[in-house]
Amino acid sequence: MINPALVKRFQALVGADNVFAEPADLLTYSYDAAVLEPVRPALALRPASTEALGAVVGLCNQEGLALTVRGSGTNLSGGTIPAQGGVVVLTNALNRILEINRADMYARVEPGVITARFAAAVGREKLFYPPDPGSQAVSTLGGNVAENAGGLRGLKYGVTGDYVMGLRYFDVDGGLVKTGAKTVKCVTGYNLAGLMVGSEGTLGVISEITLKLVPPPQAARAMMAIFDDVQKASQTVAAIIADHIVPATLEFLDNFTIRTVEDYSHAGLPTEAAALLLIEVDGHPAQVAEEAARVEDICRRLGAARVEVAQDAAQRDRIWEARRTALSALAKLKPTTVLEDATVPRSQIPAMIAALGEIARTFNLTIGTFGHAGDGNLHPTICCDKRDRDEWRRVEAAVEAIFHTALELGGTLSGEHGIGLAKSRFLEQETSRATVAWSRRLKMALDPKGILNPGKIIGG
Amino acid sequence: MINPALVKRFQALVGADNVFAEPADLLTYSYDAAVLEPVRPALALRPASTEALGAVVGLCNQEGLALTVRGSGTNLSGGTIPAQGGVVVLTNALNRILEINRADMYARVEPGVITARFAAAVGREKLFYPPDPGSQAVSTLGGNVAENAGGLRGLKYGVTGDYVMGLRYFDVDGGLVKTGAKTVKCVTGYNLAGLMVGSEGTLGVISEITLKLVPPPQAARAMMAIFDDVQKASQTVAAIIADHIVPATLEFLDNFTIRTVEDYSHAGLPTEAAALLLIEVDGHPAQVAEEAARVEDICRRLGAARVEVAQDAAQRDRIWEARRTALSALAKLKPTTVLEDATVPRSQIPAMIAALGEIARTFNLTIGTFGHAGDGNLHPTICCDKRDRDEWRRVEAAVEAIFHTALELGGTLSGEHGIGLAKSRFLEQETSRATVAWSRRLKMALDPKGILNPGKIIGG
Repeated sequence: MINPALVKRFQALVGADNVFAEPADLLTYSYDAAVLEPVRPALALRPASTEALGAVVGLCNQEGLALTVRGSGTNLSGGTIPAQGGVVVLTNALNRILEINRADMYARVEPGVITARFAAAVGREKLFYPPDPGSQAVSTLGGNVAENAGGLRGLKYGVTGDYVMGLRYFDVDGGLVKTGAKTVKCVTGYNLAGLMVGSEGTLGVISEITLKLVPPPQAARAMMAIFDDVQKASQTVAAIIADHIVPATLEFLDNFTIRTVEDYSHAGLPTEAAALLLIEVDGHPAQVAEEAARVEDICRRLGAARVEVAQDAAQRDRIWEARRTALSALAKLKPTTVLEDATVPRSQIPAMIAALGEIARTFNLTIGTFGHAGDGNLHPTICCDKRDRDEWRRVEAAVEAIFHTALELGGTLSGEHGIGLAKSRFLEQETSRATVAWSRRLKMALDPKGILNPGKIIGG
Repeated sequence: MINPALVKRFQALVGADNVFAEPADLLTYSYDAAVLEPVRPALALRPASTEALGAVVGLCNQEGLALTVRGSGTNLSGGTIPAQGGVVVLTNALNRILEINRADMYARVEPGVITARFAAAVGREKLFYPPDPGSQAVSTLGGNVAENAGGLRGLKYGVTGDYVMGLRYFDVDGGLVKTGAKTVKCVTGYNLAGLMVGSEGTLGVISEITLKLVPPPQAARAMMAIFDDVQKASQTVAAIIADHIVPATLEFLDNFTIRTVEDYSHAGLPTEAAALLLIEVDGHPAQVAEEAARVEDICRRLGAARVEVAQDAAQRDRIWEARRTALSALAKLKPTTVLEDATVPRSQIPAMIAALGEIARTFNLTIGTFGHAGDGNLHPTICCDKRDRDEWRRVEAAVEAIFHTALELGGTLSGEHGIGLAKSRFLEQETSRATVAWSRRLKMALDPKGILNPGKIIGG
């Protein structure tokens, strides 16, 4: 509960129409796409200007009130759950694309701009913004930066953080920090933008993002390789990378995912396949033709039953639509969907896929596995029912087994979803005691009252 | 002065042979490549293991003794000057390449590995480490990371920080922090590696670096475009970028630099030219052929007197040798060489070059300008004599004018050399009061006694 006098002060800052306290609103802002207990905020606010945003931050700190910034709430690690209640600050009214600069290939945006809308606007200027997280149709750029979101094109083009040239953000007192530049190189002061990327809203509140843009690829070719053996598919992933081909996208789907997607979307996928690789190469037309041929050759040599190369845009779209519906299709099967993102060095993809099959058998669970195989970043997806206590215990044990396997294979807890609430208790295991202590010192110095998205990354 | 008992403790940690206190040694470690007053340390230490390195850090903090890490001391902003004396810690005995992993395309190294030696070792494994700072023949990878060093290939391939996948470093107490991963994507915990990159040794002491490697380009072509008008050359830079060509390298030399290089190296440069552009495109052979033709066409359309395309490796080497000797050649002219690196958005290169000419005339100084025009990162180089007080006052005023011009054109104080001691008093002007305050809070939290490379970035 927030006292009425303070509510009035928030109303004065953002306007009475932009202060939400109805139970239905507070329920909406109590959860995100992670499978975690919802926590309702006391209040939700929607500043319509960055000035109002900064004033809200300053007032929350003054009052010692927890503040969780929320874009579209699509994140998968509990990053937008207001774990200590307090105020949820919505960015969806801060949705202006401030500048798209063609000559210098950058853009400046407010944090609430929807990723796909931005990518389309950039495309109309004959430029390219590569990061394409799974939730791009609804996710915001501010959320993408806060989570350092990945996507299907990470293999060749990198993740959101690779495109952040500069940031403006409010410190916990509401002071405006400016870091980075509109130049492609900048070492003026600490790399604060680098620290803010992936900091999950725990260090400051982003008000403006400068993003790098690149020339679009001149050509692209997509293909689908069909395997009757999952290990052949996973070895093919490693072989393509080892052959020094860097596809824009290199995705894996196991049989369970293929069948589920086909039931859901009737896309004409080969449901008999043990695994599919969906591959796209892009760049100069001659390079695309050559690399597509090399990829096809590697797939066949490593035992693909067949390789279907998209002959036109419709076929290409069909391949990527199949991939993009994987999570939605799996999520329909059971009440609860646990999507993991533990990541391994790419050469360990065969070992990881074998281990995931073993984990599903050991814990008697339904696990569909798909994802960014070329990045070593698979998404084993457990289809379950959290209300079934026995099954849920097995799910929790399986998730821990997945983490342990990833670490044993030289990998990491999270490739692109973040630590949030979901994985903070595993952080020290991957890093070290000194790492967590250093992180806490840093957080304490920059947010002494602990009001900025409390409980995330380094725990409560 | 350090008391003899403490010297003994350092000797016990690193071995008596690795403790240096002779005046000649201390003089060597009192300066770097920046034009700043030298400051002698009390002692220099050369740990032969990372364990000893960590123990040295812990002991310095315990004793409240300033500690400045030094690779090869090539940096240009005073980052390796021990501004408060104390201990200089040399990394040159920590020079092992721990692993070059071909399958997963990464390497792990100790901080004292020489950049060029590493790049050559990577090349022998048929992989590519692109960052090539001007001092690569002697600079260390640890120093490159601490300064986020750039280089000639920054335009297409980015800077050192773009290749740092993970770091291990000692916190100020000597605890080992581990951040990042051997995977291409990692969002496990704060992006501490991102913060450490470019932090100039002020937050922790690096003990191990995991670097991303990439497949080498299949082909490359270098060319030299000769202009009789400096503005035509600078407009050509902007036009190449605007045409969506991303050369690996796109360098500029003005007439003064051309003549000085030719006097120094007798490379056969066209000394009558007002400016040269040195350009290399790389990638797939078909792309290289097409882009080289397009670049040549743009150069001619924008008024190049002629374009010489390297016909073989010898001609290509000659072009890059000419560029790489620019600083050495200019440095021979006068006792003092002030090399600047203020950077502007690429479309502002013509305005910046015009302004530099104006600044040279206004302050009656000899300024040779060359550098990474494709990045907007020029190196106006003032050839002067610091002992001439009147001239030195004009140099200082000219440097300030260069900063102001860069900021007015939407640029930044430093593209690749860092803030160090040289530019810390200008930091707030580019950023904001809150930015400097936030940076100080961060530094204070992570180094409460202020022993880690004091005086750098955020001042004393």
